Amino acid sequence: MAGGGDELKLLGMWASPFALRAKLALCFKGLSYDYVEEDFKNKSDLLLSSNPVHKKVPVLIHNGKPICESQVIVQYIDEVFPDAGVTLLPADPHDRAVARFWAAYIDEKKQDRGGEGGGGEADVRGGGETGGSTERTFAVAEKLEGALSECSKGKPFFGGDTVGYVDVVLGGFVAWVHAIEEVFGLNQFDAAKTPLLAAWLERFDELDAVKEVMPDIGRLVELAKMRQAQAAAAAAAVAASAAGEAS
Amino acid sequence: MAGGGDELKLLGMWASPFALRAKLALCFKGLSYDYVEEDFKNKSDLLLSSNPVHKKVPVLIHNGKPICESQVIVQYIDEVFPDAGVTLLPADPHDRAVARFWAAYIDEKKQDRGGEGGGGEADVRGGGETGGSTERTFAVAEKLEGALSECSKGKPFFGGDTVGYVDVVLGGFVAWVHAIEEVFGLNQFDAAKTPLLAAWLERFDELDAVKEVMPDIGRLVELAKMRQAQAAAAAAAVAASAAGEAS
Repeated sequence: MAGGGDELKLLGMWASPFALRAKLALCFKGLSYDYVEEDFKNKSDLLLSSNPVHKKVPVLIHNGKPICESQVIVQYIDEVFPDAGVTLLPADPHDRAVARFWAAYIDEKKQDRGGEGGGGEADVRGGGETGGSTERTFAVAEKLEGALSECSKGKPFFGGDTVGYVDVVLGGFVAWVHAIEEVFGLNQFDAAKTPLLAAWLERFDELDAVKEVMPDIGRLVELAKMRQAQAAAAAAAVAASAAGEAS
Repeated sequence: MAGGGDELKLLGMWASPFALRAKLALCFKGLSYDYVEEDFKNKSDLLLSSNPVHKKVPVLIHNGKPICESQVIVQYIDEVFPDAGVTLLPADPHDRAVARFWAAYIDEKKQDRGGEGGGGEADVRGGGETGGSTERTFAVAEKLEGALSECSKGKPFFGGDTVGYVDVVLGGFVAWVHAIEEVFGLNQFDAAKTPLLAAWLERFDELDAVKEVMPDIGRLVELAKMRQAQAAAAAAAVAASAAGEAS
Protein backbone atom coordinates (compact mmCIF):
# COMPACT_ATOMS: atom_id res chain seq x y z
CA MET A 1 0.00 0.00 0.00
CA ALA A 2 1.33 3.43 -0.87
CA GLY A 3 -1.04 5.31 1.40
CA GLY A 4 -3.82 7.60 0.20
CA GLY A 5 -5.81 4.63 -1.08
CA ASP A 6 -3.16 3.60 -3.59
CA GLU A 7 -2.54 -0.10 -4.01
CA LEU A 8 0.85 -0.96 -5.40
CA LYS A 9 1.93 -4.49 -6.23
CA LEU A 10 5.26 -5.38 -7.82
CA LEU A 11 5.87 -8.64 -9.69
CA GLY A 12 9.61 -9.31 -9.68
CA MET A 13 12.38 -11.85 -9.53
CA TRP A 14 15.04 -11.51 -6.88
CA ALA A 15 18.02 -11.63 -9.27
CA SER A 16 16.56 -9.41 -12.01
CA PRO A 17 18.33 -6.06 -12.39
CA PHE A 18 15.22 -4.75 -14.11
CA ALA A 19 12.93 -5.67 -11.23
CA LEU A 20 15.51 -4.11 -8.92
CA ARG A 21 15.06 -0.79 -10.73
CA ALA A 22 11.38 -0.79 -9.80
CA LYS A 23 12.21 -1.70 -6.19
CA LEU A 24 14.81 1.08 -6.02
CA ALA A 25 12.37 3.65 -7.41
CA LEU A 26 9.64 2.63 -4.97
CA CYS A 27 12.09 2.68 -2.09
CA PHE A 28 13.65 6.05 -3.02
CA LYS A 29 10.12 7.46 -3.19
CA GLY A 30 9.33 5.92 0.20
CA LEU A 31 6.30 4.07 -1.19
CA SER A 32 5.19 0.83 0.37
CA TYR A 33 4.02 -2.01 -1.85
CA ASP A 34 3.21 -5.68 -1.95
CA TYR A 35 5.94 -7.74 -3.55
CA VAL A 36 5.28 -10.95 -5.46
CA GLU A 37 8.29 -13.10 -6.30
CA GLU A 38 7.82 -14.78 -9.67
CA ASP A 39 9.25 -18.16 -10.62
CA PHE A 40 11.14 -17.86 -13.92
CA LYS A 41 10.16 -21.43 -14.87
CA ASN A 42 6.55 -21.22 -13.74
CA LYS A 43 5.22 -17.73 -14.26
CA SER A 44 2.01 -16.78 -12.50
CA ASP A 45 -1.25 -16.20 -14.33
CA LEU A 46 -1.12 -12.66 -12.96
CA LEU A 47 2.23 -12.03 -14.66
CA LEU A 48 1.10 -13.60 -17.94
CA SER A 49 -2.14 -11.60 -17.99
CA SER A 50 -0.48 -8.37 -16.83
CA ASN A 51 2.36 -8.45 -19.38
CA PRO A 52 0.99 -10.56 -22.25
CA VAL A 53 3.44 -9.06 -24.77
CA HIS A 54 6.75 -9.82 -23.04
CA LYS A 55 5.66 -12.09 -20.15
CA LYS A 56 8.54 -10.65 -18.13
CA VAL A 57 9.14 -8.95 -14.83
CA PRO A 58 9.01 -6.31 -13.59
CA VAL A 59 5.33 -5.46 -13.68
CA LEU A 60 3.92 -2.81 -11.36
CA ILE A 61 0.20 -3.07 -10.69
CA HIS A 62 -1.24 0.23 -9.47
CA ASN A 63 -4.85 0.12 -8.34
CA GLY A 64 -5.36 -2.90 -10.58
CA LYS A 65 -3.74 -1.42 -13.68
CA PRO A 66 -0.47 -3.03 -14.88
CA ILE A 67 2.57 -1.06 -16.02
CA CYS A 68 5.35 -3.01 -17.76
CA GLU A 69 9.00 -2.39 -18.67
CA SER A 70 11.37 -1.14 -15.99
CA GLN A 71 12.10 2.32 -17.43
CA VAL A 72 8.41 2.93 -18.07
CA ILE A 73 7.64 1.87 -14.50
CA VAL A 74 10.27 4.18 -12.98
CA GLN A 75 8.98 7.17 -14.95
CA TYR A 76 5.40 6.26 -14.04
CA ILE A 77 6.21 6.12 -10.32
CA ASP A 78 7.93 9.49 -10.54
CA GLU A 79 5.02 11.08 -12.40
CA VAL A 80 2.22 9.65 -10.26
CA PHE A 81 3.93 10.37 -6.94
CA PRO A 82 5.77 13.66 -7.60
CA ASP A 83 5.79 14.72 -3.95
CA ALA A 84 6.97 11.42 -2.49
CA GLY A 85 10.66 11.08 -1.56
CA VAL A 86 13.15 12.27 -4.16
CA THR A 87 12.21 13.48 -7.63
CA LEU A 88 13.81 11.12 -10.11
CA LEU A 89 13.45 12.88 -13.46
CA PRO A 90 15.11 16.33 -13.61
CA ALA A 91 12.78 19.33 -13.74
CA ASP A 92 14.59 20.96 -16.65
CA PRO A 93 13.49 19.46 -20.01
CA HIS A 94 17.02 19.38 -21.44
CA ASP A 95 18.40 17.71 -18.30
CA ARG A 96 15.50 15.26 -18.56
CA ALA A 97 16.38 14.51 -22.19
CA VAL A 98 20.01 13.92 -21.19
CA ALA A 99 18.91 11.54 -18.41
CA ARG A 100 16.63 9.65 -20.83
CA PHE A 101 19.46 9.48 -23.37
CA TRP A 102 21.83 7.82 -20.88
CA ALA A 103 19.10 5.52 -19.56
CA ALA A 104 18.49 4.38 -23.15
CA TYR A 105 22.25 3.95 -23.62
CA ILE A 106 22.46 1.67 -20.59
CA ASP A 107 19.66 -0.55 -21.87
CA GLU A 108 21.07 -0.59 -25.38
CA LYS A 109 24.43 -1.82 -24.09
CA LYS A 110 22.73 -4.44 -21.97
CA GLN A 111 20.66 -5.51 -24.98
CA ASP A 112 23.84 -5.91 -27.03
CA ARG A 113 24.83 -8.47 -24.43
CA GLY A 114 21.63 -10.44 -24.14
CA GLY A 115 18.59 -8.28 -23.59
CA GLU A 116 16.15 -7.61 -20.77
CA GLY A 117 16.26 -11.18 -19.55
CA GLY A 118 15.54 -13.04 -16.40
CA GLY A 119 18.26 -11.66 -14.22
CA GLY A 120 21.62 -10.54 -15.45
CA GLU A 121 22.71 -13.49 -17.54
CA ALA A 122 24.09 -11.12 -20.10
CA ASP A 123 26.45 -9.56 -17.59
CA VAL A 124 27.65 -12.86 -16.32
CA ARG A 125 28.44 -14.09 -19.80
CA GLY A 126 29.99 -10.79 -20.80
CA GLY A 127 32.07 -10.73 -17.68
CA GLY A 128 35.60 -11.21 -18.84
CA GLU A 129 36.26 -14.51 -20.55
CA THR A 130 37.45 -12.90 -23.75
CA GLY A 131 39.65 -9.85 -24.11
CA GLY A 132 37.24 -8.23 -26.57
CA SER A 133 34.36 -8.54 -24.13
CA THR A 134 36.41 -7.03 -21.30
CA GLU A 135 37.44 -4.16 -23.54
CA ARG A 136 33.83 -3.52 -24.46
CA THR A 137 32.87 -3.57 -20.80
CA PHE A 138 35.46 -0.91 -19.99
CA ALA A 139 34.51 1.13 -23.06
CA VAL A 140 30.93 1.25 -21.75
CA ALA A 141 32.18 2.18 -18.27
CA GLU A 142 34.18 5.03 -19.79
CA LYS A 143 31.08 6.36 -21.51
CA LEU A 144 29.20 6.12 -18.21
CA GLU A 145 32.03 8.03 -16.53
CA GLY A 146 31.31 10.81 -19.03
CA ALA A 147 27.57 10.45 -18.40
CA LEU A 148 28.07 10.85 -14.66
CA SER A 149 30.12 13.96 -15.24
CA GLU A 150 27.46 15.39 -17.59
CA CYS A 151 24.42 14.51 -15.47
CA SER A 152 25.78 15.18 -11.97
CA LYS A 153 27.47 18.49 -12.80
CA GLY A 154 30.06 17.69 -10.13
CA LYS A 155 27.53 16.52 -7.55
CA PRO A 156 27.48 13.04 -5.96
CA PHE A 157 24.82 11.34 -8.08
CA PHE A 158 23.60 11.27 -11.67
CA GLY A 159 20.56 13.07 -10.27
CA GLY A 160 22.73 15.73 -8.59
CA ASP A 161 22.63 16.02 -4.80
CA THR A 162 20.17 13.14 -4.62
CA VAL A 163 19.67 10.04 -6.74
CA GLY A 164 17.75 10.40 -9.98
CA TYR A 165 16.56 8.46 -13.00
CA VAL A 166 19.96 7.34 -14.27
CA ASP A 167 21.04 6.29 -10.76
CA VAL A 168 18.02 3.99 -10.62
CA VAL A 169 18.47 2.63 -14.15
CA LEU A 170 22.19 1.92 -13.64
CA GLY A 171 21.64 0.99 -10.00
CA GLY A 172 19.67 -2.07 -11.04
CA PHE A 173 22.95 -3.62 -12.16
CA VAL A 174 25.02 -2.78 -9.10
CA ALA A 175 24.51 -6.11 -7.33
CA TRP A 176 25.57 -7.95 -10.49
CA VAL A 177 28.66 -5.73 -10.78
CA HIS A 178 29.72 -6.98 -7.35
CA ALA A 179 28.84 -10.60 -8.13
CA ILE A 180 30.76 -10.53 -11.42
CA GLU A 181 33.79 -9.10 -9.65
CA GLU A 182 33.66 -12.01 -7.23
CA VAL A 183 33.18 -14.71 -9.88
CA PHE A 184 35.36 -13.41 -12.69
CA GLY A 185 37.69 -11.04 -10.83
CA LEU A 186 36.55 -8.27 -13.15
CA ASN A 187 35.75 -4.93 -11.53
CA GLN A 188 33.67 -3.18 -14.18
CA PHE A 189 33.77 0.14 -12.31
CA ASP A 190 37.53 0.16 -11.74
CA ALA A 191 38.75 3.17 -9.72
CA ALA A 192 41.93 3.38 -11.82
CA LYS A 193 39.99 3.55 -15.10
CA THR A 194 36.76 5.29 -14.08
CA PRO A 195 37.31 7.03 -10.71
CA LEU A 196 34.02 8.97 -10.72
CA LEU A 197 31.99 5.83 -11.40
CA ALA A 198 33.87 3.85 -8.76
CA ALA A 199 33.20 6.58 -6.19
CA TRP A 200 29.55 6.69 -7.29
CA LEU A 201 29.26 2.94 -6.70
CA GLU A 202 30.59 3.28 -3.15
CA ARG A 203 28.20 6.12 -2.37
CA PHE A 204 25.27 4.29 -3.94
CA ASP A 205 25.96 1.11 -1.98
CA GLU A 206 25.85 3.10 1.25
CA LEU A 207 22.32 4.46 0.75
CA ASP A 208 19.73 3.02 3.13
CA ALA A 209 17.21 2.45 0.35
CA VAL A 210 19.81 0.55 -1.65
CA LYS A 211 20.78 -1.65 1.29
CA GLU A 212 17.10 -2.37 1.86
CA VAL A 213 16.37 -3.76 -1.61
CA MET A 214 19.74 -5.03 -2.84
CA PRO A 215 19.77 -8.81 -3.40
CA ASP A 216 22.26 -10.94 -1.52
CA ILE A 217 25.56 -10.91 -3.44
CA GLY A 218 26.44 -14.41 -2.22
CA ARG A 219 23.27 -15.83 -3.78
CA LEU A 220 24.01 -13.98 -7.04
CA VAL A 221 27.54 -15.43 -7.01
CA GLU A 222 26.10 -18.93 -6.64
CA LEU A 223 23.67 -18.26 -9.51
CA ALA A 224 26.48 -16.90 -11.71
CA LYS A 225 28.67 -19.94 -11.01
CA MET A 226 25.79 -22.30 -11.75
CA ARG A 227 25.11 -20.57 -15.06
CA GLN A 228 28.82 -20.59 -15.91
CA ALA A 229 28.91 -24.36 -15.29
CA GLN A 230 25.76 -24.87 -17.40
CA ALA A 231 27.24 -22.84 -20.25
CA ALA A 232 30.51 -24.80 -20.07
CA ALA A 233 28.61 -28.11 -20.10
CA ALA A 234 26.53 -26.98 -23.09
CA ALA A 235 29.69 -25.90 -24.95
CA ALA A 236 31.35 -29.23 -24.16
CA ALA A 237 28.29 -31.10 -25.45
CA VAL A 238 28.37 -29.12 -28.70
CA ALA A 239 32.10 -29.79 -29.10
CA ALA A 240 31.62 -33.52 -28.41
CA SER A 241 28.77 -33.69 -30.91
CA ALA A 242 30.90 -31.90 -33.54
CA ALA A 243 33.82 -34.26 -32.87
CA GLY A 244 31.46 -37.23 -33.24
CA GLU A 245 30.21 -35.95 -36.59
CA ALA A 246 33.76 -35.31 -37.83
CA SER A 247 35.04 -38.78 -36.94
CA MET B 1 13.04 29.08 -36.04
CA ALA B 2 10.22 28.08 -33.74
CA GLY B 3 9.23 31.64 -32.87
CA GLY B 4 9.61 33.21 -29.43
CA GLY B 5 13.39 33.32 -29.82
CA ASP B 6 13.73 29.54 -30.07
CA GLU B 7 16.26 28.26 -32.55
CA LEU B 8 15.62 24.70 -33.70
CA LYS B 9 17.95 22.83 -36.01
CA LEU B 10 17.46 19.21 -37.03
CA LEU B 11 20.28 17.03 -38.32
CA GLY B 12 18.74 14.21 -40.34
CA MET B 13 19.05 11.90 -43.31
CA TRP B 14 16.21 11.82 -45.83
CA ALA B 15 15.70 8.03 -45.70
CA SER B 16 16.04 7.60 -41.93
CA PRO B 17 12.80 6.56 -40.18
CA PHE B 18 14.25 7.87 -36.94
CA ALA B 19 14.96 11.32 -38.36
CA LEU B 20 11.45 11.22 -39.83
CA ARG B 21 10.04 10.86 -36.32
CA ALA B 22 11.64 14.14 -35.33
CA LYS B 23 10.34 15.82 -38.49
CA LEU B 24 6.84 14.46 -37.83
CA ALA B 25 6.88 15.71 -34.24
CA LEU B 26 8.07 19.18 -35.26
CA CYS B 27 5.49 19.32 -38.02
CA PHE B 28 2.58 18.09 -35.86
CA LYS B 29 3.55 20.75 -33.32
CA GLY B 30 3.67 23.38 -36.09
CA LEU B 31 7.24 24.35 -35.20
CA SER B 32 9.55 25.71 -37.86
CA TYR B 33 13.18 24.62 -37.90
CA ASP B 34 16.33 24.58 -39.95
CA TYR B 35 17.02 21.22 -41.51
CA VAL B 36 20.52 19.94 -42.22
CA GLU B 37 20.81 16.84 -44.40
CA GLU B 38 23.69 14.69 -43.27
CA ASP B 39 25.79 12.50 -45.56
CA PHE B 40 25.95 8.97 -44.15
CA LYS B 41 29.47 8.50 -45.54
CA ASN B 42 30.79 11.92 -44.58
CA LYS B 43 29.18 13.05 -41.34
CA SER B 44 29.48 16.72 -40.43
CA ASP B 45 31.60 17.97 -37.54
CA LEU B 46 28.37 19.32 -36.07
CA LEU B 47 26.82 15.83 -36.02
CA LEU B 48 29.98 14.24 -34.59
CA SER B 49 30.28 16.85 -31.85
CA SER B 50 26.54 16.92 -31.09
CA ASN B 51 26.15 13.15 -30.78
CA PRO B 52 29.63 11.89 -29.86
CA VAL B 53 28.27 8.66 -28.34
CA HIS B 54 26.30 7.29 -31.31
CA LYS B 55 27.33 9.68 -34.14
CA LYS B 56 23.86 9.14 -35.61
CA VAL B 57 20.91 11.17 -36.78
CA PRO B 58 18.54 12.51 -35.69
CA VAL B 59 19.96 15.25 -33.51
CA LEU B 60 17.80 18.22 -32.57
CA ILE B 61 19.72 21.33 -31.59
CA HIS B 62 17.59 23.71 -29.54
CA ASN B 63 19.16 27.08 -28.78
CA GLY B 64 22.58 25.48 -29.21
CA LYS B 65 21.92 22.45 -27.02
CA PRO B 66 21.82 19.04 -28.72
CA ILE B 67 19.23 16.35 -27.97
CA CYS B 68 19.89 12.87 -29.38
CA GLU B 69 17.83 9.70 -29.97
CA SER B 70 14.51 9.96 -31.76
CA GLN B 71 12.21 9.01 -28.86
CA VAL B 72 14.04 11.35 -26.51
CA ILE B 73 13.72 14.14 -29.09
CA VAL B 74 9.98 13.60 -29.59
CA GLN B 75 9.33 13.68 -25.83
CA TYR B 76 11.55 16.75 -25.49
CA ILE B 77 9.65 18.63 -28.20
CA ASP B 78 6.35 17.75 -26.54
CA GLU B 79 7.55 18.87 -23.11
CA VAL B 80 9.21 22.13 -24.19
CA PHE B 81 6.37 23.20 -26.48
CA PRO B 82 3.28 21.94 -24.64
CA ASP B 83 0.95 24.50 -26.18
CA ALA B 84 2.09 24.12 -29.78
CA GLY B 85 -0.06 22.01 -32.13
CA VAL B 86 -1.18 18.64 -30.78
CA THR B 87 -0.08 17.21 -27.45
CA LEU B 88 1.81 14.00 -28.19
CA LEU B 89 2.13 12.30 -24.79
CA PRO B 90 -1.22 11.54 -23.11
CA ALA B 91 -2.09 13.63 -20.03
CA ASP B 92 -3.03 10.60 -17.91
CA PRO B 93 0.08 8.92 -16.40
CA HIS B 94 -1.17 5.39 -17.08
CA ASP B 95 -2.03 6.22 -20.69
CA ARG B 96 1.44 7.79 -20.95
CA ALA B 97 3.02 4.59 -19.59
CA VAL B 98 1.07 2.53 -22.14
CA ALA B 99 2.23 4.82 -24.97
CA ARG B 100 5.86 4.57 -23.79
CA PHE B 101 5.52 0.79 -23.55
CA TRP B 102 4.40 0.49 -27.17
CA ALA B 103 6.98 2.99 -28.38
CA ALA B 104 9.66 0.87 -26.68
CA TYR B 105 8.15 -2.26 -28.26
CA ILE B 106 8.40 -0.74 -31.74
CA ASP B 107 12.08 0.10 -31.26
CA GLU B 108 12.82 -3.28 -29.73
CA LYS B 109 11.35 -5.05 -32.73
CA LYS B 110 13.29 -2.80 -35.08
CA GLN B 111 16.45 -3.48 -33.08
CA ASP B 112 15.89 -7.22 -33.44
CA ARG B 113 16.12 -6.59 -37.16
CA GLY B 114 19.20 -4.41 -37.29
CA GLY B 115 19.03 -1.49 -34.91
CA GLU B 116 18.71 2.28 -35.19
CA GLY B 117 20.74 2.47 -38.38
CA GLY B 118 21.17 4.85 -41.24
CA GLY B 119 17.77 4.58 -42.79
CA GLY B 120 15.68 1.48 -42.73
CA GLU B 121 18.10 -1.17 -43.89
CA ALA B 122 16.75 -3.53 -41.29
CA ASP B 123 13.25 -3.34 -42.72
CA VAL B 124 14.39 -3.86 -46.25
CA ARG B 125 16.36 -6.95 -45.33
CA GLY B 126 13.62 -8.24 -43.09
CA GLY B 127 11.07 -7.65 -45.76
CA GLY B 128 10.00 -11.03 -46.90
CA GLU B 129 12.77 -13.15 -48.36
CA THR B 130 12.29 -15.96 -45.86
CA GLY B 131 9.06 -17.36 -44.55
CA GLY B 132 10.17 -16.99 -40.94
CA SER B 133 10.90 -13.32 -41.39
CA THR B 134 7.50 -12.69 -42.99
CA GLU B 135 5.79 -14.50 -40.14
CA ARG B 136 7.67 -12.38 -37.61
CA THR B 137 6.67 -9.25 -39.49
CA PHE B 138 3.00 -10.20 -39.30
CA ALA B 139 3.31 -11.23 -35.65
CA VAL B 140 4.61 -7.73 -34.87
CA ALA B 141 1.79 -6.18 -36.91
CA GLU B 142 -0.72 -8.22 -34.92
CA LYS B 143 0.71 -6.90 -31.66
CA LEU B 144 0.50 -3.37 -33.06
CA GLU B 145 -3.13 -4.01 -33.99
CA GLY B 146 -3.71 -4.71 -30.30
CA ALA B 147 -1.68 -1.64 -29.34
CA LEU B 148 -3.82 0.55 -31.58
CA SER B 149 -6.95 -0.84 -30.02
CA GLU B 150 -5.56 -0.24 -26.49
CA CYS B 151 -4.17 3.25 -27.11
CA SER B 152 -6.85 4.70 -29.37
CA LYS B 153 -9.83 3.42 -27.36
CA GLY B 154 -11.77 3.20 -30.62
CA LYS B 155 -10.65 6.58 -31.93
CA PRO B 156 -8.76 7.13 -35.21
CA PHE B 157 -5.19 7.39 -33.93
CA PHE B 158 -2.96 5.86 -31.26
CA GLY B 159 -3.22 9.31 -29.63
CA GLY B 160 -7.04 9.25 -29.80
CA ASP B 161 -8.79 11.90 -31.89
CA THR B 162 -5.43 13.37 -32.88
CA VAL B 163 -2.01 11.85 -33.45
CA GLY B 164 0.14 11.13 -30.41
CA TYR B 165 3.47 9.69 -29.36
CA VAL B 166 2.97 6.18 -30.76
CA ASP B 167 1.66 7.57 -34.06
CA VAL B 168 4.91 9.51 -34.41
CA VAL B 169 7.15 6.61 -33.35
CA LEU B 170 5.44 4.14 -35.72
CA GLY B 171 4.87 6.84 -38.32
CA GLY B 172 8.61 7.11 -38.92
CA PHE B 173 8.43 3.73 -40.65
CA VAL B 174 5.41 4.41 -42.84
CA ALA B 175 7.36 5.44 -45.92
CA TRP B 176 9.46 2.26 -45.67
CA VAL B 177 6.30 0.17 -45.31
CA HIS B 178 5.17 1.50 -48.70
CA ALA B 179 8.61 1.07 -50.28
CA ILE B 180 8.91 -2.52 -49.02
CA GLU B 181 5.49 -3.32 -50.43
CA GLU B 182 6.66 -2.06 -53.81
CA VAL B 183 10.00 -3.88 -53.79
CA PHE B 184 9.06 -7.16 -52.11
CA GLY B 185 5.30 -7.25 -52.64
CA LEU B 186 4.88 -7.54 -48.88
CA ASN B 187 2.21 -5.37 -47.29
CA GLN B 188 3.18 -5.35 -43.61
CA PHE B 189 -0.09 -3.67 -42.59
CA ASP B 190 -2.37 -6.02 -44.50
CA ALA B 191 -6.07 -5.09 -44.25
CA ALA B 192 -7.07 -8.78 -44.15
CA LYS B 193 -4.76 -9.53 -41.21
CA THR B 194 -4.73 -6.23 -39.32
CA PRO B 195 -7.70 -4.12 -40.45
CA LEU B 196 -7.33 -1.44 -37.76
CA LEU B 197 -3.66 -0.89 -38.59
CA ALA B 198 -4.35 -0.81 -42.32
CA ALA B 199 -7.06 1.82 -41.80
CA TRP B 200 -4.70 3.78 -39.52
CA LEU B 201 -2.06 3.78 -42.25
CA GLU B 202 -4.52 5.22 -44.75
CA ARG B 203 -5.62 7.94 -42.33
CA PHE B 204 -2.04 8.75 -41.35
CA ASP B 205 -0.93 9.06 -44.98
CA GLU B 206 -3.68 11.60 -45.59
CA LEU B 207 -2.55 14.05 -42.89
CA ASP B 208 -1.11 17.31 -44.22
CA ALA B 209 1.86 17.18 -41.82
CA VAL B 210 2.68 13.66 -42.97
CA LYS B 211 2.50 14.60 -46.65
CA GLU B 212 4.78 17.54 -45.93
CA VAL B 213 7.66 15.54 -44.43
CA MET B 214 7.28 12.07 -45.96
CA PRO B 215 10.25 11.09 -48.16
CA ASP B 216 9.62 10.22 -51.79
CA ILE B 217 8.63 6.55 -51.99
CA GLY B 218 10.19 6.18 -55.45
CA ARG B 219 13.59 7.24 -54.09
CA LEU B 220 13.22 4.80 -51.18
CA VAL B 221 12.35 2.03 -53.65
CA GLU B 222 15.53 2.80 -55.62
CA LEU B 223 17.55 2.75 -52.40
CA ALA B 224 15.98 -0.55 -51.31
CA LYS B 225 16.71 -2.13 -54.71
CA MET B 226 20.31 -0.89 -54.62
CA ARG B 227 20.81 -2.35 -51.16
CA GLN B 228 19.18 -5.61 -52.23
CA ALA B 229 21.61 -5.83 -55.18
CA GLN B 230 24.58 -5.01 -52.90
CA ALA B 231 23.50 -7.70 -50.42
CA ALA B 232 23.10 -10.24 -53.23
CA ALA B 233 26.55 -9.36 -54.62
CA ALA B 234 28.10 -9.68 -51.16
CA ALA B 235 26.41 -13.06 -50.65
CA ALA B 236 27.62 -14.24 -54.06
CA ALA B 237 31.18 -13.12 -53.21
CA VAL B 238 31.06 -15.06 -49.94
CA ALA B 239 29.73 -18.15 -51.75
CA ALA B 240 32.43 -17.87 -54.46
CA SER B 241 35.12 -17.50 -51.81
CA ALA B 242 33.81 -20.55 -49.94
CA ALA B 243 33.71 -22.56 -53.19
CA GLY B 244 37.30 -21.49 -53.93
CA GLU B 245 38.42 -22.65 -50.51
CA ALA B 246 36.61 -25.96 -50.89
CA SER B 247 38.08 -26.76 -54.31
